[in-house]
Amino acid sequence: MADTRSIRVKLQIYCGDEIAMGPGKADLLDAIAATGSISAGARAMGMSYRRAWMLVDTLNRCWDQPVVETFAGGSKQKGARLSLFGHEVLDSYRSLQDSLDWKASRGFEQELLSLLRDMPLPGK
Amino acid sequence: MADTRSIRVKLQIYCGDEIAMGPGKADLLDAIAATGSISAGARAMGMSYRRAWMLVDTLNRCWDQPVVETFAGGSKQKGARLSLFGHEVLDSYRSLQDSLDWKASRGFEQELLSLLRDMPLPGK
Repeated sequence: MADTRSIRVKLQIYCGDEIAMGPGKADLLDAIAATGSISAGARAMGMSYRRAWMLVDTLNRCWDQPVVETFAGGSKQKGARLSLFGHEVLDSYRSLQDSLDWKASRGFEQELLSLLRDMPLPGK
Repeated sequence: MADTRSIRVKLQIYCGDEIAMGPGKADLLDAIAATGSISAGARAMGMSYRRAWMLVDTLNRCWDQPVVETFAGGSKQKGARLSLFGHEVLDSYRSLQDSLDWKASRGFEQELLSLLRDMPLPGK
């Protein structure tokens, strides 16, 4: 049976009561960068346009400079891309996430995971 | 104006598709240990008894040994306490959490936080 035990680290950057960056926003930024628009990025994430727009709005209100830039495209649809500043923020967030994942996979992890069952017992 | 920028690390231990330990379950275990019952622990957390019971059920199905033990009390209400094994799991989880918080507060943090506004701009 495959071993299903794992540790996941979720990193959230707060600015006031707002989450300025977290796993969902980071994935949305990747999707916007890959697709070239907020609506296509939202679709790729299985997220409503409204929700994606609100996340982008939060990003742009929390960070010192715009993270996502929109621009008029050739069609009716506006295009969007990450600013250089946005790439810097995203890269820095991913680097911190990676270093924490690495840290979590050392030391305590083996001790803690060894106390888990391979799979949960079935629910009642 | 107070600086509202911060980084929070959430640590989730998975067993299959179930979260065997995370911030909410760890806090519930503290509350059960402090109050001596699942229902009082749930109340202290502002959580329904049903929800607390389900979290305890998940805990006990995921870990190698029971984490929470229930026992008949003097009244109609059953008592509950953490097993020695449960204390070991909780302590180990908290230690890993602390070491990751410490790690997150070094190095990258200053770089990343310096890019945030002190407070988000107001929403539209």
